[in-house]
Amino acid sequence: MKPAVCLLSGGLDSSTCLAYAQREGFDCYALSFDYGQRHRLELDAAARIASSLSAKQHRVVKVDLRAFGGSALTADMDVPKDGVQPGIPITYVPARNTIFLSFALAWAEVLGASDIFIGVNAIDYSGYPDCRPEFLQAFETLANLATKAGVEGRMHLRLHAPLLHLSKSDIVKLGAELGVDFSLTHSCYDPDAQGRSCGLCDSCRLRLRGFQDAGLQDPLAYR
Amino acid sequence: MKPAVCLLSGGLDSSTCLAYAQREGFDCYALSFDYGQRHRLELDAAARIASSLSAKQHRVVKVDLRAFGGSALTADMDVPKDGVQPGIPITYVPARNTIFLSFALAWAEVLGASDIFIGVNAIDYSGYPDCRPEFLQAFETLANLATKAGVEGRMHLRLHAPLLHLSKSDIVKLGAELGVDFSLTHSCYDPDAQGRSCGLCDSCRLRLRGFQDAGLQDPLAYR
Repeated sequence: MKPAVCLLSGGLDSSTCLAYAQREGFDCYALSFDYGQRHRLELDAAARIASSLSAKQHRVVKVDLRAFGGSALTADMDVPKDGVQPGIPITYVPARNTIFLSFALAWAEVLGASDIFIGVNAIDYSGYPDCRPEFLQAFETLANLATKAGVEGRMHLRLHAPLLHLSKSDIVKLGAELGVDFSLTHSCYDPDAQGRSCGLCDSCRLRLRGFQDAGLQDPLAYR
Repeated sequence: MKPAVCLLSGGLDSSTCLAYAQREGFDCYALSFDYGQRHRLELDAAARIASSLSAKQHRVVKVDLRAFGGSALTADMDVPKDGVQPGIPITYVPARNTIFLSFALAWAEVLGASDIFIGVNAIDYSGYPDCRPEFLQAFETLANLATKAGVEGRMHLRLHAPLLHLSKSDIVKLGAELGVDFSLTHSCYDPDAQGRSCGLCDSCRLRLRGFQDAGLQDPLAYR
């Protein structure tokens, strides 16, 4: 089995992506980040999913994105709840996927892995620039110039984004088919103290619409 | 004055690079990393240099590169002291500059800065892949696809590497001309308990040869 590093936030998309990579026959090393997000539910969800999908390892790296601020997810700003608007929302975290993929690259090189999986999606997404195909392509190019293993010909990095062109409902269907236990995942940007999802932030809205369009029931508790 | 993010390790090259960016008229935001390097002398040096060169701000971000290991600088391996060898040495830290530049990009976006300075050098260097011109070019391309500010046309990122094609002795001369106080810098991979440089690791060897070729005296204490 070939090793692969799989970015795992604990949400619907990254959990489905991890299940996909497992089905493709990779030994998955799941990587999550403690980046000063507003709540720890995401990391708890990531740990549950990594375990339930039998990832080979799950590692949480602490990175201080709050040092810079600039996002509703890492600073004290209100998360928008008026529905998904055109343009890039204030939940955008500056350079987040660039940073996450850089760490994934470091781990891949140490593991001798040539494959990185990321669950980004360019259809039903929040308009984040670092979820676009051209961004991913540029990162793959960079990655193949960045490492010792690459220069020495021991590693030709492939960045996999199997959900890139799927709609949210297709992702729900794929996750269900792959046996992802959606009750273990977490998507909400602004859960309450009991961990219940708000149902109103962009992330909840996209998720709920995905389940609805797929004709499936979201097992999460909404307030 | 335009803001710029300047990566600063506290060594000869990054200190000279910071002085260069200041002379070019940028308001410099110096960025260092506490990445589990073997000693804190580097970070102390970075703080002294940022202060002596009047950087606008100096920020130290903690990133746990020890989580992955894979380098003599972040794991318990011996630093080589037999002279600079062909090939990429074990002091290479997987994806280090990719990670550092990603954080620089995040801060640049928050600051509204379009300029990042990095003191890498492709002549008298240790053979690290992430110091090569093609790597820097690929990062600049990535950076311009990665951010909200880029997509919205508010930022066209330029990655400056003014030392890229200088020899080590040219860097020493440039630093001297720009008034860098070399006694505040630190380059050694393996200093002793008193903070004295070993004089034998690749970093010391390159530095000492640079001073010698420049006809200048290195003010640091060597054991």
